[in-house]
Amino acid sequence: MIGIFDSGYGGLTVFKPIIELLPEYDYIYLGDSARAPYGGRSGEVIKKFSEEAVEFLFKHGANLIIFACNTASSLALRHVQEKYLKGPNERERKILGVLIPVAEEAVKTTKNGHIGVIGTKATIQSKVYETEIHKLKPHIKVFQQACPLLVPFIEENWHKKPEANSILKKYLLPLKSTHIDTLIPGCTHYPLMIGQIEKYMGKKTKILHSGEITAGKLKEYLERHPEIDSKLAKNKNRTFFTTDNPRRFKEFTEQHFGMKIKMPAQIELG
Amino acid sequence: MIGIFDSGYGGLTVFKPIIELLPEYDYIYLGDSARAPYGGRSGEVIKKFSEEAVEFLFKHGANLIIFACNTASSLALRHVQEKYLKGPNERERKILGVLIPVAEEAVKTTKNGHIGVIGTKATIQSKVYETEIHKLKPHIKVFQQACPLLVPFIEENWHKKPEANSILKKYLLPLKSTHIDTLIPGCTHYPLMIGQIEKYMGKKTKILHSGEITAGKLKEYLERHPEIDSKLAKNKNRTFFTTDNPRRFKEFTEQHFGMKIKMPAQIELG
Repeated sequence: MIGIFDSGYGGLTVFKPIIELLPEYDYIYLGDSARAPYGGRSGEVIKKFSEEAVEFLFKHGANLIIFACNTASSLALRHVQEKYLKGPNERERKILGVLIPVAEEAVKTTKNGHIGVIGTKATIQSKVYETEIHKLKPHIKVFQQACPLLVPFIEENWHKKPEANSILKKYLLPLKSTHIDTLIPGCTHYPLMIGQIEKYMGKKTKILHSGEITAGKLKEYLERHPEIDSKLAKNKNRTFFTTDNPRRFKEFTEQHFGMKIKMPAQIELG
Repeated sequence: MIGIFDSGYGGLTVFKPIIELLPEYDYIYLGDSARAPYGGRSGEVIKKFSEEAVEFLFKHGANLIIFACNTASSLALRHVQEKYLKGPNERERKILGVLIPVAEEAVKTTKNGHIGVIGTKATIQSKVYETEIHKLKPHIKVFQQACPLLVPFIEENWHKKPEANSILKKYLLPLKSTHIDTLIPGCTHYPLMIGQIEKYMGKKTKILHSGEITAGKLKEYLERHPEIDSKLAKNKNRTFFTTDNPRRFKEFTEQHFGMKIKMPAQIELG
């Protein structure tokens, strides 16, 4: 089974393109909405929450986990990979993030070597996008900008209001002057504002779609790793878990993603 | 010892007037910043988090706990009072909220019988302010408004920006037309925007100061209950606990409240 982990609803922007590209697999989605958003929390706390999520997903039958959340990918992915995948489990289980696929795509996309990254405070402070991009091409210039108020606006469904647009412009203004030709929206919520981001940044800047990139990379990965792929159930089951109100989760999913889903089960982590 | 519980930093707007009015007591402050804000969470989750906080504070020597957080007071206070204060502990321990003192003050203040309440989504949906006001005077009209984006703006320290002001006006606009003469800022964060709220609502509306009201009521309570008061240590100790980064907690406290505090201890709840 493929497990998708996010701090809340945002990971649905990754989940949706994944199930569109790979519909035959079984999926469990875990959204830790009771403790979302993660983006303003310390690295230590994000690691602890991520461990709990990984343990839950493994226990419920996931062999392959996708960290849809950029904050968790940035702050905790390496940590949980080291903790849970060393030794006998190394070939049986896998945990992948959104970060490396997106960094690779950004490096492929840029022509002028100027890449922008927007994300939560925790993601930006970790500088992991910069690190991954520099591993691939050390001379690329990476310009980062934390946008902490975008997630609350999106969660409120007020992200199309003029105030949200004005806040967005305040965040993007310093990036505009850097002549980036590629922008990474480094938070699963941001695709819901992608039209506004594209409009403000203009046609010279290509805005990457993290969800679609991650879905494509997952497909390639499964083709390259039949030993993992053969262990994944393919009965088109989708199961949702949330740590907060299941009804609210279902409503948000149906409203923002046009997906009809079964009522999630409410669980406790930690 | 007196324990002060809040979902994060916001409770400091209650803590500060309390220690100014009652400086001689020992205090422990617990801010659950790793899971803040509580305002968008379900009642069930808020009850669980509040139980964990109460157990922690009792275990660390609190005899009297103040729920500074309006959301926790609204959704979980009665629940924890019933769970932890029945039976042999009834005379030894006490848990008080901010809600009833503020509701009483609002009823005393209003002349035209129109009271407004602003708060988080969870507080407003619970309708507890309305319920408490109607217990005192059933004919008072209560007008409520959830303001979910104010806390994120304040936590970002962007609450003086024009966008924050514009969002605030959008929230307050429906209240203006109701001719309220008294407004309850039903969230511990809101005192940090009180100037803007007063300016927009105008001189005809009295904005209550929940922190000062709670401090005054606590003083009265201790004078009326010497059996509780005599058990409280009075060595002017102040100890801080947080579930997230202690350094960030200390910085926020010193920046926004001008209080020099000892480095908080980081703890885990749940």
